[in-house]
Amino acid sequence: MPRTLDILLVEDNPNDVELALYVFRRNGIADRVRVVRDGEEALEFLQCRGNFAGRFRSEGPAIILLDLKLPRVDGFQFLQRMRSDERLRTIPVIILSTSNEPSDIIRSYALGANSYIVKPVEFERFVDAVRSIVQYWLTLNQIPDVR
Amino acid sequence: MPRTLDILLVEDNPNDVELALYVFRRNGIADRVRVVRDGEEALEFLQCRGNFAGRFRSEGPAIILLDLKLPRVDGFQFLQRMRSDERLRTIPVIILSTSNEPSDIIRSYALGANSYIVKPVEFERFVDAVRSIVQYWLTLNQIPDVR
Repeated sequence: MPRTLDILLVEDNPNDVELALYVFRRNGIADRVRVVRDGEEALEFLQCRGNFAGRFRSEGPAIILLDLKLPRVDGFQFLQRMRSDERLRTIPVIILSTSNEPSDIIRSYALGANSYIVKPVEFERFVDAVRSIVQYWLTLNQIPDVR
Repeated sequence: MPRTLDILLVEDNPNDVELALYVFRRNGIADRVRVVRDGEEALEFLQCRGNFAGRFRSEGPAIILLDLKLPRVDGFQFLQRMRSDERLRTIPVIILSTSNEPSDIIRSYALGANSYIVKPVEFERFVDAVRSIVQYWLTLNQIPDVR
């Protein structure tokens, strides 16, 4: 089954979701993006459990954009749990967080985040950042094959 | 001691070193780049051993650009050894390799590579790729603090 999903966006803030979807639409990939609202829902989605029992891991996503402050299972817990799942541990995870705390940055990398972006507050800069992430990770970077 | 080094380039091919240095010069960061020729030299440099006993880990680098096919200690062995060094394991490593073999890509991610770029053969595209890497990792991305 070919990969049908480029991005899993794990984000509970509706404004940030709207802004990101705006960029995805402008880049023509909005129909290849899935949004979930917390780390527990993200794990169920990736592991094809619960409400997502009908989907296949091979459908993707290619990359995961992950907020840190999330209800139920936060970004750190999510990272820890997905990196210990043999079949998920190579999917690139890009942190997209308002926090620029050095402790959050180092902890994210230590738990296996591939990259850490501080969410710009200003609209245009947020849009630029998401566009740069999409271009770098989906065009230049090679994604590991989903098994 | 402030970080004085942006990039450690681990590359044995003199042509690829020249091309990369050309991009670094054009971006005004050539004096913040260090080139080593194999994985063993890279480990000595990062661990401040051997010929590099006089330098300090806190000097950097911010990121590592790593070829895979290297003499003595190759890219995979290097990744494995640096990721098991508590003080090195959070430094972002970007693979820059001629190989587009799925097995090389998945193995790199499994060993803790942050990103995997296939070296473009064409001059202009190689230059564009290195420039994109520099811009993404040194401008947009947040680097963990060196301890």
